[in-house]
Amino acid sequence: MRRIVLRVSYDGTEYAGWQRQPLLRTVQGEIERNLLRATGEDITLHASGRTDAGVHALGQVAHFDTSARMPAERFVYALNVGLERDIRLLESWEVSPDFHARFTAKRKHYRYTIRNAPIASALTGRFEHHVHRPLDFERMNEAAAHLLGTHDFAAFAASGSHVKTTVRTLYESRFSRAGELIYYDTIGSGYLYNMVRMMVGAFLDVGAHRAPPADLARMLHPPTCPAIRTTAPAHGLTLMRVEYE
Amino acid sequence: MRRIVLRVSYDGTEYAGWQRQPLLRTVQGEIERNLLRATGEDITLHASGRTDAGVHALGQVAHFDTSARMPAERFVYALNVGLERDIRLLESWEVSPDFHARFTAKRKHYRYTIRNAPIASALTGRFEHHVHRPLDFERMNEAAAHLLGTHDFAAFAASGSHVKTTVRTLYESRFSRAGELIYYDTIGSGYLYNMVRMMVGAFLDVGAHRAPPADLARMLHPPTCPAIRTTAPAHGLTLMRVEYE
Repeated sequence: MRRIVLRVSYDGTEYAGWQRQPLLRTVQGEIERNLLRATGEDITLHASGRTDAGVHALGQVAHFDTSARMPAERFVYALNVGLERDIRLLESWEVSPDFHARFTAKRKHYRYTIRNAPIASALTGRFEHHVHRPLDFERMNEAAAHLLGTHDFAAFAASGSHVKTTVRTLYESRFSRAGELIYYDTIGSGYLYNMVRMMVGAFLDVGAHRAPPADLARMLHPPTCPAIRTTAPAHGLTLMRVEYE
Repeated sequence: MRRIVLRVSYDGTEYAGWQRQPLLRTVQGEIERNLLRATGEDITLHASGRTDAGVHALGQVAHFDTSARMPAERFVYALNVGLERDIRLLESWEVSPDFHARFTAKRKHYRYTIRNAPIASALTGRFEHHVHRPLDFERMNEAAAHLLGTHDFAAFAASGSHVKTTVRTLYESRFSRAGELIYYDTIGSGYLYNMVRMMVGAFLDVGAHRAPPADLARMLHPPTCPAIRTTAPAHGLTLMRVEYE
């Protein structure tokens, strides 16, 4: 058996998320179906993490084990042939058996895209959260900086997640802009369920002057956390990159 | 009656082109349906020109006449509400009755986008023609320059078009690139049916070394025109802008 890694990009609009589910079209399900076709094996993919319905990826990472004798780099082409245009494998390579797409991941980069303009984009609206009222960029950036470092992010976890610890480290947390577009980029050790979308929801409250930037700092101390509970919509979110050692 | 102009953007992927057709979903049909809803009038839209199935627009222009008393600039919002996300009206304003979206148009800017890379984009593939074999950028740019100026473009018209003259003027005809993307931009007095896609088809033949750049010059003299007859696919093409006096 060899362990093969895939770097995967997808437009999540038409999928019920990453994770395989009976009766639903998911990214994992589509790739596994093509793995069966290409290898004859019933293969399970292990991703760096699942992405929710509607979330996109430019650099999702997933591994699988196979006895197929195809050169590792050929999997990209063998699988892309059968996939719809909105999923593209970008790279495939062999790794040692102690690599695990989820457990050995060190950092993940997510980007959230906001179009702050009177009118949404007909062409790229599926990748952007449209906010027509003007947002205060400086205030949002100030709020974003409060989350840098190692903190308890329990206030930014949707209920229903069961994890050992809600402590995570953010190495980057900042806004940038280009014309009508505002990007939020975060690089972190990992994220709780819905964490990025809840963070962005809080930033949007700050940007619309519904809350002060310092509320983000207060949310990191759960007993006194203020009630910012807006979750930004999934379609603005893209998993950009997963880093390993 | 007042004459109102709309500037319209659309992702053409899910539409059978601009022009209204029975039983088919078209951009004109969708906007007219919303005009009926917003005004109670059975209104006909007149575009700068129809775009084919799959072609996109960032700046299509269309006008209509109405007795509705809504302020001209409100039409954008009144119509966008009922339209799918992949059609967005960008602007609406009143013009004098001698304005005509088609007959008074002076220049049109089209962009054709090629992704020249081993693997297509999952996110923006619907707006890009994917060519995996390397294209010779300099040769294509040389070919493009041959079309500048006023010429008989009969060799670049799909059969079935019936026009008084096949003479057109191109004010701009050039390639540029950014990473894996190659753009062809053309600004012209007007275009024959399928003209831009046939021009790009010829450039792609030149870029793949299947024809010399000088063939483009020869194609402007119909009796001796060489048999380059590739039509580039619709989904790479976007109508960027229509200019009026």
